[in-house]
Amino acid sequence: MLEGNVLIAQGGGPTAVINQSLVGAVLAARAIPTVSKVLGARHGVRGIIEEDLVDLTMETETDLNAIAGTPCSALGSTRDKPDADYCKRIFQVLKAHDIRTFFYIGGNDSSDVARIVADEAAAEGVALRCVHIPKTIDNDLVINDHTPGFGSAAKFVASAFAGIDHDNRALPGVYVGVVMGRHAGFLTAAAAAARVEPDDGPHLIYLPERTFDAAKFVTDVKAVYDRLGRCVIAVSEGVHDADGTPILSKMSEAVETDAHGNVQLSGTGALADLLVGEIKAKTDIKRVRGDTFGYLQRSFLGCVSETDATEARGVGEAAVRFAHIQDRNGSMVIRRTGDYASTYDMVDLSEIAAKTKVMDDAFIANEGNDITPAFLSYVRPLIGNGIPRVGRIRAPQVAKKLSA
Amino acid sequence: MLEGNVLIAQGGGPTAVINQSLVGAVLAARAIPTVSKVLGARHGVRGIIEEDLVDLTMETETDLNAIAGTPCSALGSTRDKPDADYCKRIFQVLKAHDIRTFFYIGGNDSSDVARIVADEAAAEGVALRCVHIPKTIDNDLVINDHTPGFGSAAKFVASAFAGIDHDNRALPGVYVGVVMGRHAGFLTAAAAAARVEPDDGPHLIYLPERTFDAAKFVTDVKAVYDRLGRCVIAVSEGVHDADGTPILSKMSEAVETDAHGNVQLSGTGALADLLVGEIKAKTDIKRVRGDTFGYLQRSFLGCVSETDATEARGVGEAAVRFAHIQDRNGSMVIRRTGDYASTYDMVDLSEIAAKTKVMDDAFIANEGNDITPAFLSYVRPLIGNGIPRVGRIRAPQVAKKLSA
Repeated sequence: MLEGNVLIAQGGGPTAVINQSLVGAVLAARAIPTVSKVLGARHGVRGIIEEDLVDLTMETETDLNAIAGTPCSALGSTRDKPDADYCKRIFQVLKAHDIRTFFYIGGNDSSDVARIVADEAAAEGVALRCVHIPKTIDNDLVINDHTPGFGSAAKFVASAFAGIDHDNRALPGVYVGVVMGRHAGFLTAAAAAARVEPDDGPHLIYLPERTFDAAKFVTDVKAVYDRLGRCVIAVSEGVHDADGTPILSKMSEAVETDAHGNVQLSGTGALADLLVGEIKAKTDIKRVRGDTFGYLQRSFLGCVSETDATEARGVGEAAVRFAHIQDRNGSMVIRRTGDYASTYDMVDLSEIAAKTKVMDDAFIANEGNDITPAFLSYVRPLIGNGIPRVGRIRAPQVAKKLSA
Repeated sequence: MLEGNVLIAQGGGPTAVINQSLVGAVLAARAIPTVSKVLGARHGVRGIIEEDLVDLTMETETDLNAIAGTPCSALGSTRDKPDADYCKRIFQVLKAHDIRTFFYIGGNDSSDVARIVADEAAAEGVALRCVHIPKTIDNDLVINDHTPGFGSAAKFVASAFAGIDHDNRALPGVYVGVVMGRHAGFLTAAAAAARVEPDDGPHLIYLPERTFDAAKFVTDVKAVYDRLGRCVIAVSEGVHDADGTPILSKMSEAVETDAHGNVQLSGTGALADLLVGEIKAKTDIKRVRGDTFGYLQRSFLGCVSETDATEARGVGEAAVRFAHIQDRNGSMVIRRTGDYASTYDMVDLSEIAAKTKVMDDAFIANEGNDITPAFLSYVRPLIGNGIPRVGRIRAPQVAKKLSA
């Protein structure tokens, strides 16, 4: 059972609901009579070694609820990966503050941090309970059906592409939107979640789970454009060639080989611009535009899936409950139990840590440039009901009275 | 008074609420007993010359309300600018369909289209009533206190920067967000609308109303970074040097002068990438990121200001009422009458057409790198109440027990 002080911290990239997990864990831990204090470390494990701690026992529940509704890690984050010395320093601070349980909210890397700390603690004979609480907009933690943060980011991407598709229908042309996700394509695939009618975009979706062929890409785009007079495309930032080389660096090199020198192409807008340039160069389509969605996807204020918020809160609370009752280290996971319902479970840290899940083949269309209905069934409950229903002009065409 | 058939069309860039104006006008026109039919032209004036018309008299009110809540021009848009021959073709089609009143929903260019059509009609002796209904996310129509579409786009930009600021606080560094607006800085300035506490970003705002000095920019960024350990910056895509040359083309030229050849830097992500490169080159700040917000700003599904939606609907309805009762050509305008209340009026087309409003000096801080409280008072009612209240950890720091 939990005793003494409890420490909570947040690692890795922020999400829209990571503070729900923080608040779920804080409130659950505060409710346990044998817990003395609930502390927070500023900026993840870095806050521990710098002894930069706050006393969350003093935070009002009203304030905590406001924090829960605020995007991005309220305690601050870090991407530090502790080594043995780093862990020694962690243990000194934990001992000084009578901290016996450590909750770390984060993605793949943070689950690995929790594993490292747990393993080092065991090796050093430090009595420490370590529990990892999942989050990542990439949705790429193994065992988990999905991860907190993904549903809200997916809602952002789906809403963005739904709007972009209306925009593109009003002023037709080609549009390329580049979405986050280096290894797993879930977030890019979510671009299709708000499609309603057969001609709704995105019409093409390129995922890191499939090899990206620039020539095939241009052919695909031209085919859609010839059919619909327009084309909206979702591309994962992580698309790569058959050797696994990211298209961004590959195409940038091609530009350099063409004697363009060391132009900075690593900026975040570069991939969309490169693909737009490719379409312009290889087709006669005039209006070609591109955006790289960037950081808005994970932090936009007010774009939250209620399913995601509820589960992020729940898994934070469940982490404390599992740690207290089962009294073991582990990583919390979310399992789907119905259509739609979910439950929380705890697995060994080693089962999650530093592993990456990618999209199931059943979610990707055979051609490799779209998703399947199975993916829509998977993703829509995670996005929830917050995407407004759209309308379209159904009025009959007026018969022409003049010759052209 | 309105008689015969009425034609409505939409021009220029889409907004989140342009269909509210369409539906407001359609419903008001349908309610006038002397109006036979209400027609819509697909893709603006181009739909007229192509005789591509739909009968909006057949559209159900239920469907119209769904369309009103859908972003982007439901009838489609165009950027065509008619000349005398183009107008002759317009008049042929109008005559063939007994269209005696033409409503054109759009921004500066579309108001100019309405003026051209009205002037040509007068010169040709065509009996035609022409009324322009305003919209533009740029908020740059003269006489108007503000324009439909701006409030919702401002809400998007404010929500984006509020989220980005939390993100940047969690993982500190420098962030550059490039916002739409080539000549007027209103939308970029709206980045500040959700600031709450003194250290909230954006910490620097660069507008096209002021000359952009790249060296001063770097100095500003460094000063904020030294003070706060981070810096969030909003930059208008239209920032330019003292000669009016856009920074994007200026800095691209510099890159080319450095023998980098004809690299495509005109892509939408280029300005953010260039400014990020400038900061990286001139400071020792390690984490520097940039995004170009792109088309999401004007079309994102579900990011609508209720003030904006109500006014867009109202001004569309008012346009029909003014045309019917006052029986004259004109451009609808929105005037602010209280804090906050607004009213609609009609002015001559020539007073609006092709003119550009920029930000008042009173809205821009003396240093030229921020906005004033007066701008916040101006913009916040237009964004409305839809920005969620955020929370921040207030818990007391835990006293250190170890020496560093």
